Amino acid sequence: MRLTLLGTGAARRTPVYGCDCPVCEAARENPALRRQPCCALIEEENGRWLMDAGLTELGARFPQGFLSGILQTHYHADHAQGLLDFRWGIGRLPVYGPPDPEGLDDLYKHPGMLEFAPPPRPFLPFSLKGLRVTPLPLRHSRPTFGYFFESSVLPRRLAYLTDTAGLPDQTLDFLRENPPDALALDCSYPPDEIAPRNHNTLDMALSIIEELAPQEAVLTHIGHELDVWRQKARPLLPANTRWGEEGMILE
Amino acid sequence: MRLTLLGTGAARRTPVYGCDCPVCEAARENPALRRQPCCALIEEENGRWLMDAGLTELGARFPQGFLSGILQTHYHADHAQGLLDFRWGIGRLPVYGPPDPEGLDDLYKHPGMLEFAPPPRPFLPFSLKGLRVTPLPLRHSRPTFGYFFESSVLPRRLAYLTDTAGLPDQTLDFLRENPPDALALDCSYPPDEIAPRNHNTLDMALSIIEELAPQEAVLTHIGHELDVWRQKARPLLPANTRWGEEGMILE
Repeated sequence: MRLTLLGTGAARRTPVYGCDCPVCEAARENPALRRQPCCALIEEENGRWLMDAGLTELGARFPQGFLSGILQTHYHADHAQGLLDFRWGIGRLPVYGPPDPEGLDDLYKHPGMLEFAPPPRPFLPFSLKGLRVTPLPLRHSRPTFGYFFESSVLPRRLAYLTDTAGLPDQTLDFLRENPPDALALDCSYPPDEIAPRNHNTLDMALSIIEELAPQEAVLTHIGHELDVWRQKARPLLPANTRWGEEGMILE
Repeated sequence: MRLTLLGTGAARRTPVYGCDCPVCEAARENPALRRQPCCALIEEENGRWLMDAGLTELGARFPQGFLSGILQTHYHADHAQGLLDFRWGIGRLPVYGPPDPEGLDDLYKHPGMLEFAPPPRPFLPFSLKGLRVTPLPLRHSRPTFGYFFESSVLPRRLAYLTDTAGLPDQTLDFLRENPPDALALDCSYPPDEIAPRNHNTLDMALSIIEELAPQEAVLTHIGHELDVWRQKARPLLPANTRWGEEGMILE
């Protein structure tokens, strides 16, 4: 079981169009510092699933047959916009996501090659070719699932939790009982943001990581303001925690 | 006044993801044969306007300050999806389009740097820094405007008419009275498509071109099926008419 971060940014991405701050200027010069819309690839022996389709030009990124399906955390545009044109391909691609009657634009009405599966139920595991997946409700402005993965091969558990501001009690209870070995977690804002509704501040993210104590945690969905703040504050992270970067792998 | 075709394809684009027909295979090998979502750039002395934002990654395509604004023909995803992330830049960019209460997803609710102007009225010209623009209603499944441009410098008139299936009577009357020198026109389907609701067949497009008799006409919004049909049928076009290709310029 392997998770690769393909995008680690917030909706604005980095660089922000028209922003001439040092973080954005550096990202323009060095592609390794850029942040695309938050998404990841989860792979196991029997398949590969894209987690969120906020990247555009998916057809150019993934050869036909590469993906076994798509897991949507939710249907905000920065997590789903890539489906708007990808759907017009030939073939069939299952899409799993939370119950959200609207989805994005007319995707449900004109799904093209996408097969929107009946939404899985919170806390009820389902199998993706042997990979066990449990949807975990998150706290966001739209119906949103995080996903808890259990390898079919090794006793290894991984949680991908974005977008969320803190965690709902039931989800936190589940994770206390089933502590993940590896955790990818929403961390959008610097610590001084007051009571954000939709995303974690650094403090909120670190508090969740401390509570769940995974061997390995990675912060993702990193907002532009957080990167700007980091450059000045140079905060230290706990030993088990890293700032997400694109291409980073959790195994 | 100069119009550059930036995208000449239909919603599926060319190549179609997963399609191994000769047209798609050739387009994979030769980028000059690809078709992106239908859009264009209109330029005059005082500014540059993007006509439809169906291309993605607009921030990477247009340096800051390059565009004076955006003209939307309508808000189907393949004509507007590029706005979903472009909006999160810094600055202000006016957007003009038909009256469509919904727009695309939450663009009106969270416009970011986009300034959606009050919709211009059909047949009432307005000025974009001296470039005179008249919105012409088209026949499509969603409120849609074509645009009629009159240069501020030369006695030159250009019409950009997509997406449309034929033309509404009033629009046709307007164009008979104000025949354009140059015309970019929706031509999505081969001639054997029966009574399409939203786009022109080749026959419908050629009939409009014959009626309006512009010096120069270019066919755009070319669907994959039309390119496939063309390869076999090898149809001849009238002397004033060309198949649209990306990068093609009407001046």
